[in-house]
Amino acid sequence: MITITSKDNKIIKKFAKLKQKKYIDKTNMVLLEGQRLVEDARKRNAKFVAVFSLNNAFTDDSFDCPVYKLSSSVFKMLSSTENSQGIIATISFPKKNFALPTGDFLVLDRIADPGNLGTIIRTAVAFGFKDIYLYNCVDHRNSKVLRSTMGTIFDANIYDIDKENLNDLAKFNLLSAEMNGEDVSQIKRLDKHFGLVLGSEAFGVEKEIANYCYKKISLPMENDVESLNVAIAGGILMYLLKQK
Amino acid sequence: MITITSKDNKIIKKFAKLKQKKYIDKTNMVLLEGQRLVEDARKRNAKFVAVFSLNNAFTDDSFDCPVYKLSSSVFKMLSSTENSQGIIATISFPKKNFALPTGDFLVLDRIADPGNLGTIIRTAVAFGFKDIYLYNCVDHRNSKVLRSTMGTIFDANIYDIDKENLNDLAKFNLLSAEMNGEDVSQIKRLDKHFGLVLGSEAFGVEKEIANYCYKKISLPMENDVESLNVAIAGGILMYLLKQK
Repeated sequence: MITITSKDNKIIKKFAKLKQKKYIDKTNMVLLEGQRLVEDARKRNAKFVAVFSLNNAFTDDSFDCPVYKLSSSVFKMLSSTENSQGIIATISFPKKNFALPTGDFLVLDRIADPGNLGTIIRTAVAFGFKDIYLYNCVDHRNSKVLRSTMGTIFDANIYDIDKENLNDLAKFNLLSAEMNGEDVSQIKRLDKHFGLVLGSEAFGVEKEIANYCYKKISLPMENDVESLNVAIAGGILMYLLKQK
Repeated sequence: MITITSKDNKIIKKFAKLKQKKYIDKTNMVLLEGQRLVEDARKRNAKFVAVFSLNNAFTDDSFDCPVYKLSSSVFKMLSSTENSQGIIATISFPKKNFALPTGDFLVLDRIADPGNLGTIIRTAVAFGFKDIYLYNCVDHRNSKVLRSTMGTIFDANIYDIDKENLNDLAKFNLLSAEMNGEDVSQIKRLDKHFGLVLGSEAFGVEKEIANYCYKKISLPMENDVESLNVAIAGGILMYLLKQK
């Protein structure tokens, strides 16, 4: 284990830049903080570039990458949360080129809240929607998104898409979650892979995207509640559509 | 409409204290920020004490309480977010004394994240679980909880409970959401009101509380995902149990 105590160390200065989106985009690497998240990422075969321990907080040397022991002031250069529990990892996480889905899939339209996006990804992997297409969403490599996925993101296929890609996805059956759609309990299961489309927290599914969908679906609600949180609605719909 | 431009104004100084939990507890009043949230609270018959407009941002004088026009520096004394959209309201929101449920209900055990608690309340009201019992959760009058409920909290009956109250609730059928429970799809609907018990994000349902429950239930998952976010699991379970 290599010990680093200088704030001028080049390795640390390089990785500390990964707190900024532009360096994530430039290097295709992300930082993960906290024992649970790092372990979850390892379980899901994320590609580790380096692991950093705060002093002796972390002594596991079974990683397939360099492990560095850092002094407190150096460790802080990498850390963004108070929940790092003395461990941070750098993971290689390039974006994927568009590919067609190989199973049931999600299309997310302008999801803006990192916690919502992360929670949706976690739920999607749990229910077998491993291909997830993002249309103008918050960056999925944002640290809060990564944290909310609990490591499941490394098991998903995440794609940033444009309208042309939507055309390709529309060859499958797309169902959009909307306020005034057909009650999901009335929907019959489709033969082929289907895609569930979830829209922005504030605006729902954009009309142009809804036009690619063959059906609008809804969850009936009581007490004049107008809408559910998008991650909740998405979770219920994914579960129900999988049962059909 | 009364105009206030002095930071020394006694009304403003009094209400500005409501940013602190101890003054919420002392006065049983809360601040709500943003046009949508204020409108949602009004729709649900929340008890308005005062409404504050940033300059002329807000000109509706149909509230059944004083409406004040504030200069920018005075308005900032009340505001905690950047999304106030020029409107803040003070609402009277005392805690309720324990009462037995009048329909299906929720028991929440040590939910710590305000966003999760607020989202659970919003979903619960949407699916008709209006009695919500909180055991050692984050304070439901916290501003982030209020915001996440989208105003639905004013339609719910929220109770802080202790173990003695749990004894009373256990006279109804309690189902606890756990990792290794019975598949919810196998559960038959019960005759009487039932309670769904959801546990802490980090630790699940405490063993002592689980002992009050007559059944443990689970949602089957794929891809070695260990758990769902508690608000997602709760949302799916509430929907499914209501259908039975």
